[in-house]
Amino acid sequence: MKFRIEKDTMGEVRVPADKYWGAQTERSRNNFKIGPPASIPLDIVYGFAHLKKAAAYANWELGVLEEEKRDLISRVCDEILEGKLDDQFPLVIWQTGSGTQSNMNVNEVIANRAHELAGHTVGDGKKSIQANDDVNKSQSSNDTFPTGMHIAAYTKISKVTIPGVTQLRDTLDKKAKEFEKIVKIGRTHLMDATPLTLGQEFSGYVSQLDHGLKALRNTLDHLSELALGGTAVGTGLNTPKGYDVLVAKYIAQFTGLPFKTAPNKFEALAAHDAMVESHGALKQLAVSLNKIANDIRMMASGPRSGIGEITIPANEPGSSIMPGKVNPTQCEALTMVCAQVMGNDVAIAVGGAQGHYELNVFKPLMASNFLQSAELLGDACVSFDIHCAVGIEPNHKVIKQLLNNSLMLVTALNTKIGYYKAAEIANTAHRNGTTLREEAINLGYVTAEEYDEWVKPEDMTGSLKD
Amino acid sequence: MKFRIEKDTMGEVRVPADKYWGAQTERSRNNFKIGPPASIPLDIVYGFAHLKKAAAYANWELGVLEEEKRDLISRVCDEILEGKLDDQFPLVIWQTGSGTQSNMNVNEVIANRAHELAGHTVGDGKKSIQANDDVNKSQSSNDTFPTGMHIAAYTKISKVTIPGVTQLRDTLDKKAKEFEKIVKIGRTHLMDATPLTLGQEFSGYVSQLDHGLKALRNTLDHLSELALGGTAVGTGLNTPKGYDVLVAKYIAQFTGLPFKTAPNKFEALAAHDAMVESHGALKQLAVSLNKIANDIRMMASGPRSGIGEITIPANEPGSSIMPGKVNPTQCEALTMVCAQVMGNDVAIAVGGAQGHYELNVFKPLMASNFLQSAELLGDACVSFDIHCAVGIEPNHKVIKQLLNNSLMLVTALNTKIGYYKAAEIANTAHRNGTTLREEAINLGYVTAEEYDEWVKPEDMTGSLKD
Amino acid sequence: MKFRIEKDTMGEVRVPADKYWGAQTERSRNNFKIGPPASIPLDIVYGFAHLKKAAAYANWELGVLEEEKRDLISRVCDEILEGKLDDQFPLVIWQTGSGTQSNMNVNEVIANRAHELAGHTVGDGKKSIQANDDVNKSQSSNDTFPTGMHIAAYTKISKVTIPGVTQLRDTLDKKAKEFEKIVKIGRTHLMDATPLTLGQEFSGYVSQLDHGLKALRNTLDHLSELALGGTAVGTGLNTPKGYDVLVAKYIAQFTGLPFKTAPNKFEALAAHDAMVESHGALKQLAVSLNKIANDIRMMASGPRSGIGEITIPANEPGSSIMPGKVNPTQCEALTMVCAQVMGNDVAIAVGGAQGHYELNVFKPLMASNFLQSAELLGDACVSFDIHCAVGIEPNHKVIKQLLNNSLMLVTALNTKIGYYKAAEIANTAHRNGTTLREEAINLGYVTAEEYDEWVKPEDMTGSLKD
Amino acid sequence: MKFRIEKDTMGEVRVPADKYWGAQTERSRNNFKIGPPASIPLDIVYGFAHLKKAAAYANWELGVLEEEKRDLISRVCDEILEGKLDDQFPLVIWQTGSGTQSNMNVNEVIANRAHELAGHTVGDGKKSIQANDDVNKSQSSNDTFPTGMHIAAYTKISKVTIPGVTQLRDTLDKKAKEFEKIVKIGRTHLMDATPLTLGQEFSGYVSQLDHGLKALRNTLDHLSELALGGTAVGTGLNTPKGYDVLVAKYIAQFTGLPFKTAPNKFEALAAHDAMVESHGALKQLAVSLNKIANDIRMMASGPRSGIGEITIPANEPGSSIMPGKVNPTQCEALTMVCAQVMGNDVAIAVGGAQGHYELNVFKPLMASNFLQSAELLGDACVSFDIHCAVGIEPNHKVIKQLLNNSLMLVTALNTKIGYYKAAEIANTAHRNGTTLREEAINLGYVTAEEYDEWVKPEDMTGSLKD
Repeated sequence: MKFRIEKDTMGEVRVPADKYWGAQTERSRNNFKIGPPASIPLDIVYGFAHLKKAAAYANWELGVLEEEKRDLISRVCDEILEGKLDDQFPLVIWQTGSGTQSNMNVNEVIANRAHELAGHTVGDGKKSIQANDDVNKSQSSNDTFPTGMHIAAYTKISKVTIPGVTQLRDTLDKKAKEFEKIVKIGRTHLMDATPLTLGQEFSGYVSQLDHGLKALRNTLDHLSELALGGTAVGTGLNTPKGYDVLVAKYIAQFTGLPFKTAPNKFEALAAHDAMVESHGALKQLAVSLNKIANDIRMMASGPRSGIGEITIPANEPGSSIMPGKVNPTQCEALTMVCAQVMGNDVAIAVGGAQGHYELNVFKPLMASNFLQSAELLGDACVSFDIHCAVGIEPNHKVIKQLLNNSLMLVTALNTKIGYYKAAEIANTAHRNGTTLREEAINLGYVTAEEYDEWVKPEDMTGSLKD
Repeated sequence: MKFRIEKDTMGEVRVPADKYWGAQTERSRNNFKIGPPASIPLDIVYGFAHLKKAAAYANWELGVLEEEKRDLISRVCDEILEGKLDDQFPLVIWQTGSGTQSNMNVNEVIANRAHELAGHTVGDGKKSIQANDDVNKSQSSNDTFPTGMHIAAYTKISKVTIPGVTQLRDTLDKKAKEFEKIVKIGRTHLMDATPLTLGQEFSGYVSQLDHGLKALRNTLDHLSELALGGTAVGTGLNTPKGYDVLVAKYIAQFTGLPFKTAPNKFEALAAHDAMVESHGALKQLAVSLNKIANDIRMMASGPRSGIGEITIPANEPGSSIMPGKVNPTQCEALTMVCAQVMGNDVAIAVGGAQGHYELNVFKPLMASNFLQSAELLGDACVSFDIHCAVGIEPNHKVIKQLLNNSLMLVTALNTKIGYYKAAEIANTAHRNGTTLREEAINLGYVTAEEYDEWVKPEDMTGSLKD
Repeated sequence: MKFRIEKDTMGEVRVPADKYWGAQTERSRNNFKIGPPASIPLDIVYGFAHLKKAAAYANWELGVLEEEKRDLISRVCDEILEGKLDDQFPLVIWQTGSGTQSNMNVNEVIANRAHELAGHTVGDGKKSIQANDDVNKSQSSNDTFPTGMHIAAYTKISKVTIPGVTQLRDTLDKKAKEFEKIVKIGRTHLMDATPLTLGQEFSGYVSQLDHGLKALRNTLDHLSELALGGTAVGTGLNTPKGYDVLVAKYIAQFTGLPFKTAPNKFEALAAHDAMVESHGALKQLAVSLNKIANDIRMMASGPRSGIGEITIPANEPGSSIMPGKVNPTQCEALTMVCAQVMGNDVAIAVGGAQGHYELNVFKPLMASNFLQSAELLGDACVSFDIHCAVGIEPNHKVIKQLLNNSLMLVTALNTKIGYYKAAEIANTAHRNGTTLREEAINLGYVTAEEYDEWVKPEDMTGSLKD
Repeated sequence: MKFRIEKDTMGEVRVPADKYWGAQTERSRNNFKIGPPASIPLDIVYGFAHLKKAAAYANWELGVLEEEKRDLISRVCDEILEGKLDDQFPLVIWQTGSGTQSNMNVNEVIANRAHELAGHTVGDGKKSIQANDDVNKSQSSNDTFPTGMHIAAYTKISKVTIPGVTQLRDTLDKKAKEFEKIVKIGRTHLMDATPLTLGQEFSGYVSQLDHGLKALRNTLDHLSELALGGTAVGTGLNTPKGYDVLVAKYIAQFTGLPFKTAPNKFEALAAHDAMVESHGALKQLAVSLNKIANDIRMMASGPRSGIGEITIPANEPGSSIMPGKVNPTQCEALTMVCAQVMGNDVAIAVGGAQGHYELNVFKPLMASNFLQSAELLGDACVSFDIHCAVGIEPNHKVIKQLLNNSLMLVTALNTKIGYYKAAEIANTAHRNGTTLREEAINLGYVTAEEYDEWVKPEDMTGSLKD
């Protein structure tokens, strides 16, 4: 392997000759061998690319960076965003908690690649662009990392989570409408209860996801606040006047998302409550999805000795030993994702709670857990939608049979003969293994005609609709 | 002890003669001896009182309950709300997960006490009011418990949490303004960094709490949705037409809070995502407050061998063995509350994720954890405010000394001589135990005049303000 | 209300005349109005009573306390342990994180009550016993609170948790044996699978609880280490030589539990990993119990439209609106407890992780969450045992029917005709709604005789037993 | 891209021609596009390789597999373990919760690669080895996945976690001894307290890690129990007699770790409490390490305006904007790992609690979180050790100065003049900004000689040692 020498304020470091990164990245690679390499999410790198480009434009517009440097920086940022330099970011999550070394990794790669774009060879001659003085101009790790993190988080939610959840929500809504007249037994405490329609059941899922999406959107305003312009401790030291507002405007323009400068930079560096807040909404979605996936796998259970009210697609052989077995695998993937998100929520809270003075140093942890949750939820909803939800079909025969067996239809008699007599009918039928109708008439509380008029499952599902 | 006989659909039960509760409450007392008695929060009982009264009014207005019964029920509800019947609710959190027995406890107490108010003796004659057929008319545990829970949660947030957090926020804001010109050293990674003002530091806390309060308020709309009218499974079986909207209107009127009927009752029974959502915001506040309390106790540490930049009130002797010791006890109480809220958030998520079919049966768990968090946060903020925050004072001498020592003032030279030379100055001063000024001049990078003009701590805190 | 004046090093305080507590308790009452009063668990107070008595004996034996004082202190401790002074401990969990004020509460109550026992009137004359110099001799809050906490935790586990879990375990074991020949369908992924016996299913529950109890016992050694003797920072300042070992010996003697002095007092004050460790085992039990309770309620679901393989006792009417409904309420109480314990585990970890230097100041939080978990688990297991587990009965008819329907019996043919052909049989029968036997013969893979010989559910449950 | 056709019981699938995997792996790749590809940890694949080889040997020894097949399977397993086939395992964590498809992935790769080793071309002719009937013989996903998971978990703990933690523990122990005579101020509540030695402080860390390692080892017995032999539901269907014990023996032999067959296979499939248990101990270590890392960064804070009692190595430039800044980056990486482990603990508990009937379907989630925690803790301890702990040095000057300033040295007078008078001295000195000695004499409580004899910091640290 060939090396070249790079320098930082601590001295010289040997760096792989075929890489653009510099001394500080290499130090970090060597100092933090924790878990697999390159674990820092590329989404954060892309967030950095947007902000470095925006900073170059803002610095140029405010007269502190030459146009030529702006353009060189900007071109490398575009290459990063096109994915051309993905192998230039070897650092791990488990580095300094400010992400300083990831900021420097981006600075160094931009500086060296810009030198190349300027017609030179990396390592030769005076650098055309300085990592600290040019690329990092008017910036600090302390404001860039949270900015990159917010860009990445907001983008992931916008591009993956919300579309994914919405896609599933729309399918469930379609099913709710399709199934709106299929009367089935309700179950409370897992026990037989009064009837409702399968469509009503699904409408509950839709309502959960609608509320979850609304909750998630409610958090985006906080997440749109960018730390950039606060520099080292939030005061904006070494930034030109007007820079913070301007750089946020450029970021909004480059990303197409409604970013703005954080009104209070001290919070924006020292606390990441916006991440805690948005992830709280992701956790809420996880809680909702866990319920939905559980219901669907229970209703689809069987095929012969379970509940079996619905069928779901058979996507793969379910067992390496039991021939012909089919399992609710999408439900399982989704509920595992939900459990992960619930765990990530704790990691984020624990990290978020431990900021000190002017800086929270759990940034890479918070960012990586957040991005994982946002991506997994979006992906899992799409997977669940395509491979499960769209194929859900009612099993009419089973639904009808389980409905008609139910003793809880007796509830319809409460308003006619009172709760106590109704209970007597149900208990007697349960004890004797008979039908409600038989015992209702036997006990002399209703006539056959009354029973047939009063106890109609389909009439028991509708009072809220009329 | 004297007893009387009460009956339910399962038969007779002996009940303490001096209590209003009936058979089902007594069964629950005996069947669930888990933890201390009467652990179900009274706030939920009060929520029930509001809703039982509202149901009586709605039932009466819709022609299914006599005015006389309405008034009897209503009078007992008022007594409950006045706290006169607090000893009539002996049940525990750890009962059925639908809270059925707490609903019945309320129904039974109202029925028996109403009988008494109607001029009879409890246990004598036909009950003037039936627990199930009258008090519980147009209701089910499945819609009353979540309704009572939402009323209690919304009320607690409105009356305790928001005012408490706001009180602390206002004090911190006052301090932020008072301290806005006190320049001090900043600290990132716990290490000396560039200066800011003490007021800026406090403004970050204010911003955190403002965001937290906003996040909490964002969740209230979901929490204002009431399940009542859904009855057993969400279909509204056995309710008169228009009941759900009307009963919510009465609840809003009686509580003075903007409650409304849930658009989707199936969600409202089977999932309690609104509780998950609001508690997520409480957790966010806990995360914020943990940071704030930590900062304050670190800055107040000492008195002689810590940081000592501020002083906080000495409220009590701090040690049973070390004479004269004073401790940041309010910070400790507050951070313990924060840890509790972070734990409660998990309990609520775990419970919220495990609803099945038409019902979530972790209701009392979710409600009790929620109410505890909401109350503790509000109370702890008030306590912290009164006994700590209002008394925070800067220790000017220490602040000045620590500021002037700092090597990070060198950052002001970045834009004049570049990052690398500035680093050389700082490193040299650190190595030699000298001042920046000495080494800056020694190294020949600046003149004494330049140094004095360029390195002014007070100028380093302000670029965002200009 | 009448008051008397008490003094501490900060000055005079008015205290209710009818209470034994002194100035510091009263200060804490006023300074920490957070949540309901007297929330600090009495179990901790009792732990303190044991240790104060033990300290008096050790101090006496080592010649630093007069016998008369020893006996006065000891008599009050005995009164506390008899529950006679329960109303003398009004403080809350949310106080100083070292529990200093609870230590002083105990010191003050003992001092004043001892004065009374010595024939004087509280508040009159020189105190016969000094709260700090006598009762607290050779102690600090910093070593007494963790000692009281360990005593309380160990006692609760020994007296409540282990017996409660063991009682349930024994019932499940009895059921496992009773049910050992009842062949039923197995279910994996909630889907029909190969058969096992109901007894085998229950044996898995027993094995879980056995492992959980073993894990819990494994933690007790760490929990048996007592901080007492470390005083303020772990050095044992102001204690006579040999005191730490001796006082632990007395505590072991008074409690009947195998306590010993912590080999390292610095850990014992600054970290409460023993609490984290033991609560980890409680959480493991919660995880196990959640699974067990879920299985039982799913198997008992119905009565007509669920799984219905077992029946559980009907302990109370299950619904305020659905007559005759019975619910798995004990399962629900138990799973709510499990969720609480999982939440408490996070609160304890968050608190445990944030010790600083010589002291962890999340002690009351950690203690109260721990004690709640230990008590709830023990109580809930007993409740579940008495009111549910002992009454579990198989529903032979349903079990047989669901077993014989199952397509997964085809697995028995794998070793005869291979996985692929077996799958073809199962899939064909599933598609056609026919039986395995029919299709196996139709497809020509087995003869009727072979099928009947090879596919015997009862033979499919036993290979591990032979 | 070139493809070949593979078949399973559901039909034909196109598979990349250059890969060994088969139809079921390919289905899973397409059906579960959730998060990045190939996220299932390779450690689990290696666990599978051990068990597949062991199963081949056990099957052969028990007469149900030909020696030739045994050897072919075995050779591929060895190739997997040498890392030669790492790119053949493309599946994600978020698949079926039983890990069925990862089991099949291994089965398919072994079958096809074995075919090649047998001299054939993949896809040509009848397979020499069948994925289900040969490689998976006497197995099910339901018992292989938990077996592979236990092998991977136990191995990771043995090879990475325990050595890593031990390495750090040993360094801290060395430091504790080195520093045993360095008297410094103690701090409780972050406030000045009585003195101890720096070595005593470090001995507390060592004690924490010793307890944590012991707790972790206590859990290994449960983790050593292997599910293999339980097959589909725990009954061991389709396994030859004696297989479960034998296969565990082979696994123990091949791995060099003390594995044994689980006494109860029903637990071993349906619950993964052993994972919950062991991860509980990992969480305990995280709690301990968080405390240790926090202490070290606080003591190293400065360099001029913090505590500064120790110095730690400067490994990299600490700031992209503040020249010369050095940060406690290893502490930050470690505490981020601790937060992650605390979050993972919740994910594992949530997954572990939701097993149903004969199977827990959160296996890949539980395994991946567990392995991440075990690896991160081990790696982070090594990193922290090498790059921080070994380089910790006391700053004698600062230590002495902070010690001598402390007012808490007054505690030494408690046993001479009583707590109250000692408090008066400390309070007076605090108020007047004077020394204890001055005020002690001024107040007339001690003579100068007495003071100098009684108040010796070095004497205040040792009573436990004598």
